[in-house]
Amino acid sequence: MHYLDNVATTRVADAVADVADAVLREHFANPSSLYTPGAKSEFTIADARAAVAASLGAKESEIVFTSCGSEGNNLAVLGAAKARRAWADHIVVTGYEHPSVQLVVDALEKEGWRVTKVMPDETGHVDLNAMIEAVGPKTALCTAMHVNNEIGSILDVAALAKAVKEKNSRTAVHVDGVQAWGKLPIRLNETKIDSYSVSGHKIHAPKGVGALYLRSGYNITPVYLGGGQEHGRRPGTENIAYIAALAKAIELMQSGWKARTQRLAALNKMLCDGIAQLDGIVKNSPDDALSEIVNFSVDGIKSETMLHFLESRDIYVSSGSACSKGEASHTLTAMGLSRRRIDTAIRVSFCGDTTEDDVRALLDALREGMGSLAHMR
Amino acid sequence: MHYLDNVATTRVADAVADVADAVLREHFANPSSLYTPGAKSEFTIADARAAVAASLGAKESEIVFTSCGSEGNNLAVLGAAKARRAWADHIVVTGYEHPSVQLVVDALEKEGWRVTKVMPDETGHVDLNAMIEAVGPKTALCTAMHVNNEIGSILDVAALAKAVKEKNSRTAVHVDGVQAWGKLPIRLNETKIDSYSVSGHKIHAPKGVGALYLRSGYNITPVYLGGGQEHGRRPGTENIAYIAALAKAIELMQSGWKARTQRLAALNKMLCDGIAQLDGIVKNSPDDALSEIVNFSVDGIKSETMLHFLESRDIYVSSGSACSKGEASHTLTAMGLSRRRIDTAIRVSFCGDTTEDDVRALLDALREGMGSLAHMR
Repeated sequence: MHYLDNVATTRVADAVADVADAVLREHFANPSSLYTPGAKSEFTIADARAAVAASLGAKESEIVFTSCGSEGNNLAVLGAAKARRAWADHIVVTGYEHPSVQLVVDALEKEGWRVTKVMPDETGHVDLNAMIEAVGPKTALCTAMHVNNEIGSILDVAALAKAVKEKNSRTAVHVDGVQAWGKLPIRLNETKIDSYSVSGHKIHAPKGVGALYLRSGYNITPVYLGGGQEHGRRPGTENIAYIAALAKAIELMQSGWKARTQRLAALNKMLCDGIAQLDGIVKNSPDDALSEIVNFSVDGIKSETMLHFLESRDIYVSSGSACSKGEASHTLTAMGLSRRRIDTAIRVSFCGDTTEDDVRALLDALREGMGSLAHMR
Repeated sequence: MHYLDNVATTRVADAVADVADAVLREHFANPSSLYTPGAKSEFTIADARAAVAASLGAKESEIVFTSCGSEGNNLAVLGAAKARRAWADHIVVTGYEHPSVQLVVDALEKEGWRVTKVMPDETGHVDLNAMIEAVGPKTALCTAMHVNNEIGSILDVAALAKAVKEKNSRTAVHVDGVQAWGKLPIRLNETKIDSYSVSGHKIHAPKGVGALYLRSGYNITPVYLGGGQEHGRRPGTENIAYIAALAKAIELMQSGWKARTQRLAALNKMLCDGIAQLDGIVKNSPDDALSEIVNFSVDGIKSETMLHFLESRDIYVSSGSACSKGEASHTLTAMGLSRRRIDTAIRVSFCGDTTEDDVRALLDALREGMGSLAHMR
């Protein structure tokens, strides 16, 4: 199996599944209980919180465990807007956010917020200066992705946060870090970023767990209320097993970071060189994108046709983001690409387990598919 | 170990942990992906949805998977109020709800909603007629617990829903079913209940998964937005492993339901008869409470003192709900009990694995503790 859709989700690492299973069976007591088994559950969570905080260059108290990246983004965006409603009426956002940011901002716009949406250009870059320029005295929130989930564009979110705060120190800066965590180094306490969301299932942890960094002293209004868990910022009895698994997963990502990054850069070059030699393929990812993500269009062959052909060769890629399930790519549309290019787009995404053999199999199959598949008129 | 705090949380059943582990390792593909492994993940979720729906007497399309009971309650209450804001300004609620309902209603009250709170009497019963009477032409929502989490009181939520709808067919009826699921039979499609929240970790499934019943055609405004999962009602890549585990857990609860219910009624009688013979113990749970929950006060001995004494005998109970971690019991306070009775309360809660030996050990330890522990003046 050549699994090349790691941005959609990753295979759970064996060592991570082992942790989840062991904690699930052993630490069942409620961490809020007053007896010793409860305290043991609490210690397990505390250890995981320390690991996640360390990976982000943050303090333990700044980490809120969530059930997924989408929850973190919703809480960060809604919570920031709600807490600033008294004096603010404006939000700045990129035009290629994940739906868990984009749809929330759209809903706030319908409720009366003014929204400035800074679209990516046709190379997949968002103009930082345009975002900063849009920030005014009544801007509650500036929100941006660290790494785009469809084309891998990287935004300098530390520079963005610094400049936004210089323009308006009260403007909150949220970063969707779901596709960046464990791949790009970040030391949040050395930046002006207020909130940063991450997810487990993009780094070989289970689906159903994530975390949200909330800078110490940063003010958001919680959206969901309940038993006071996570210092009142996210209710619900803690998913101890997956929280421990999340910590294990980020530790694995970090311990192999340097070698992994070099390997993936080489695989990225191998794939990009390979498709450059295939007539009719045009790359949609910018050259300075994250190595893990290569998006390209195969002229004349519909994405789904190619996707299913590749599947017949046991190669798994996607046509757009998994979240939009068959809809036209949100990011490529925002870049203003032609409908033909959007409808023929393929997203390939690597993980640390990806090999040269996987890339070779993909290139061979692409060549074969381009020769044999029915072309669009 | 005599674990008698099953209302706080339960031990994950081995068969359930086996399912979670197997699915976690096998079905890693994103259910929204267009290739076959993704479809297999989707089928796994569909099977689980059918099992959960069947347990509730509901249709599959009416089940939304969540990350916990608190999330379900928040979504149901906020979503119902938001969807009715144009014509409604009033909410009816019991005075002994879980914080994931109570605090949400309190927050809505601060935002301008009128709230009628119907308190339980000193026997732990909430007057259904008082709730129904409070419903008026501008009542958006009537929300109540099926089983109270501290004393085990049962409310006839089907009768409540029927009467509420007769008074105002537009009033939404939400039921927190977290402590009732798998213990009390319910056929939601035969009732007028609009939404019903359940949680996994109260029935030997992992912490971090739950479900929310939303009656077909029932209108709520989603709170969190994103990738369109769960028909747009709850975003986030699905936690396939825990969803499958949840289904396994409710199937186990149901397959042994009759024998379990009879056994627990006998254990309840054994405990109640036992404490009735101990001078200075007064029961706080009503006689018609759920067999699983027995709340009582031990005159003169502070809850935490007794709790830690019992722990030294390897017996685990709680002083109030785990969620409020040491705070004075919300339910006993609402019942208007004396501070002395509240400060000396102990909550014992059974599961299907509880034995006569557990109850005997508890009764012996209570007798011993009452003889040896320092009394409050």
